Amino acid sequence: MKGLNEYIEQNKQRFLDELFELIRIPSISSTAANKPDMYRAAEWWKKQLLDAGADKAEVYETEGHPITYGEKIIDPKLPTVLVYGHMDVMPVDPIELWKSPPFEPEIRDGKIYARGADDDKGQSFMHAKAFEFMVKTNQLPCNVKFMIEGEEEIGSPALTNWCIEKKEMLKSDIILVSDTGMIAQDIPSITVGLRGLSYWQVKVTGPNRDLHSGLFGGGVANPINVLAKMIADVLDENNHITIPGFYDDVLESSAEERALLNEAPFNLDEYKKALDIAEVHGEKGYTTIERTGIRPTFDVCGIWGGYMGEGAKTVIASEAFAKISTRLVPHQNNLKIAKLFKAYFEKIGPKSVTVDVEYLHGGQPYVCPITINAYKAAEKAYETTFGKRPVPVRSGGSIPIIAHFDEALGTKSVLMGFGLESDAIHSPNENFPLFNFYKGIETIPHFFKYFAEMGK
Amino acid sequence: MKGLNEYIEQNKQRFLDELFELIRIPSISSTAANKPDMYRAAEWWKKQLLDAGADKAEVYETEGHPITYGEKIIDPKLPTVLVYGHMDVMPVDPIELWKSPPFEPEIRDGKIYARGADDDKGQSFMHAKAFEFMVKTNQLPCNVKFMIEGEEEIGSPALTNWCIEKKEMLKSDIILVSDTGMIAQDIPSITVGLRGLSYWQVKVTGPNRDLHSGLFGGGVANPINVLAKMIADVLDENNHITIPGFYDDVLESSAEERALLNEAPFNLDEYKKALDIAEVHGEKGYTTIERTGIRPTFDVCGIWGGYMGEGAKTVIASEAFAKISTRLVPHQNNLKIAKLFKAYFEKIGPKSVTVDVEYLHGGQPYVCPITINAYKAAEKAYETTFGKRPVPVRSGGSIPIIAHFDEALGTKSVLMGFGLESDAIHSPNENFPLFNFYKGIETIPHFFKYFAEMGK
Repeated sequence: MKGLNEYIEQNKQRFLDELFELIRIPSISSTAANKPDMYRAAEWWKKQLLDAGADKAEVYETEGHPITYGEKIIDPKLPTVLVYGHMDVMPVDPIELWKSPPFEPEIRDGKIYARGADDDKGQSFMHAKAFEFMVKTNQLPCNVKFMIEGEEEIGSPALTNWCIEKKEMLKSDIILVSDTGMIAQDIPSITVGLRGLSYWQVKVTGPNRDLHSGLFGGGVANPINVLAKMIADVLDENNHITIPGFYDDVLESSAEERALLNEAPFNLDEYKKALDIAEVHGEKGYTTIERTGIRPTFDVCGIWGGYMGEGAKTVIASEAFAKISTRLVPHQNNLKIAKLFKAYFEKIGPKSVTVDVEYLHGGQPYVCPITINAYKAAEKAYETTFGKRPVPVRSGGSIPIIAHFDEALGTKSVLMGFGLESDAIHSPNENFPLFNFYKGIETIPHFFKYFAEMGK
Repeated sequence: MKGLNEYIEQNKQRFLDELFELIRIPSISSTAANKPDMYRAAEWWKKQLLDAGADKAEVYETEGHPITYGEKIIDPKLPTVLVYGHMDVMPVDPIELWKSPPFEPEIRDGKIYARGADDDKGQSFMHAKAFEFMVKTNQLPCNVKFMIEGEEEIGSPALTNWCIEKKEMLKSDIILVSDTGMIAQDIPSITVGLRGLSYWQVKVTGPNRDLHSGLFGGGVANPINVLAKMIADVLDENNHITIPGFYDDVLESSAEERALLNEAPFNLDEYKKALDIAEVHGEKGYTTIERTGIRPTFDVCGIWGGYMGEGAKTVIASEAFAKISTRLVPHQNNLKIAKLFKAYFEKIGPKSVTVDVEYLHGGQPYVCPITINAYKAAEKAYETTFGKRPVPVRSGGSIPIIAHFDEALGTKSVLMGFGLESDAIHSPNENFPLFNFYKGIETIPHFFKYFAEMGK
């Protein structure tokens, strides 16, 4: 890839300016109020792909948020890479913890601070710039398709059907995704496994109105007390999940696999220090790497009910709510787990309350074979630019759509992530180091080169 | 008491108009923003007492909200009644459940709907009007003092010290309070027992920032999961409180007392129907009347943490919060309980989190002897206006200051309440039936008459 570093050097500022335009669009997919922003982001991507050199680009309507598709076909006989990314971002609460406004990107200490700086605006945009370089310098070695969706953070509800419908248009030899991380700037890694996810909102209803906690306290079920107990009952004293059948389909890793996994660079003291915690916490019998990589979880992502204001109000709330998620591992099925949890949670609620469980979204776990050429091409690309062979890792995160691609399109995905754990994705002060941003733009063209050389 | 009913009939509308002026002042004591409203309410009461016939009235500053004091001394040799009430009200959340604005009183179906309509603006105002009647018709049979405070709903933190300081000024033979309820419009009752209260805010802190629930889930303590378990651990399978030493000072009622208590009119089916619950819920081995009257409780009044917005956000929150209260019974001590809970709750938190317990407020339980003249005078007053002898009841509610009066001033209180359970105090759509409002104004002068006749 001739002139790659020079091209990046000469266009550094423009790359940032363009990314910042995208970041400034508050494309939060989970809040209805931001719906128009999803269209703005989709149109922005269409223009971006055309400017970068796509033959054509279109914004497609779905029953949810739009999808931008673009392509450049140089020779149908050559391999085709389908780049997948997402233009939507997570909500920004708690907003008061952000040091700079989430949708006004700011560079501090060599990092871009903004919601979406990494996940996934920063990372998906690297592909647009890598593509631009290959087109403008006449070095594009194969066909490229881009599919940038707007519902990743809410579980991609429309994308699977859209993929089935557009199967012919989306035909490719590999799906290339940058929406994951690497171990450190000097330890490149490629994610070869993703956890699945099931996510619910639960509501516990007691008395038909908020009650005086003195006059009624002790005599009626307090929905908050009840919800707390129900949540507590889902984990036993070993932090093992008590939902009947929950572990039935879990792929148990062999002793060898577990030993290999634990060889990945990980320093427990540094981990605790970075999070400012005295102890880690998790399923008995497993290390932190195993707990976050190969074991399923049960986490309450939000809880609320009763009086949350200043001072003291003595009240028994009528309702209590929680947002609950489980991360799943191969070969758990998110829809099966969704049913098991609903049945269990409704069953353990006492008769003195009513329990509603609504399934919000989910996705299947995914494993990428490290034997395929696309994985090997990615490995060589990192080796070329980082000077080190990347480590294959199992991530605790979920990209539900990746498993769906496998099913709907019959195509594997390679997860070339350039994020860092410190990027604080989904959190206040999300950021993306400029080093990683430019290194991503530099590494991606090498993948295209090696993949085209190796063949499908 | 001559001309009493005529006086009420002729001034009905004016009484309402005046009460509505007071209700329109949003005197929420727990929110700092309403501080100026506390002064408006205090000045309103000063004018009200002077207009009604007080010799003097003053607004007193405290380190918290102001207190209005007024008096009419007709003869130092006669008995003196100290009327206690409060001008502050509870917060109005959840505001969306109110059918009419909480601070814009509205009459529907013969009831005044507004925050404070009963608790305690409506009830304390009845005393101003009863006093006005006795003064204007020259029938005041003894001395009267009024002490209307602004911090009852937050535990009267300033009032005890103020009472000690103003002990001479506040000297009286009985404290008369209307801040409780009666069984039904046709079943008058007098509250002879109040539960005490301890109230805390707790905070559980895990990692130093909100984390991605995929990347970290399973590996770190989730503060919401932990808080839920800690709350659950405070109640055992019999809904017995597990805090060591919690029951040590509980006055166990005898079998005879319990039998008598359970003779009070109470229909479990109607109770469940009114609250729209399938089952009641509480401490094993006790009836609903006992659970809410003579047994202590543990209730979470509010809980929050993590993502509470629309849709799904996969996050592990850094912090989780709860507002927690216990209702106490004789002879539990609220400060002792405050310490026991703090020690226990901090102890049961795992090392993977930090637990902060802040004591917000509390009060001692109280029992009024039914042998004192003041109780007998109240009994006769109800009998005169309701045609039935009132039932003595133990209330589950708390008025922390009542026990403090006993200690600080050495004076007992008689709780002549005119509220109903359906008044929804502390809840949306708080109300006070016009029947009870006018009946209270009618009954109070009879208390003065009988008490003056019977002597101290």
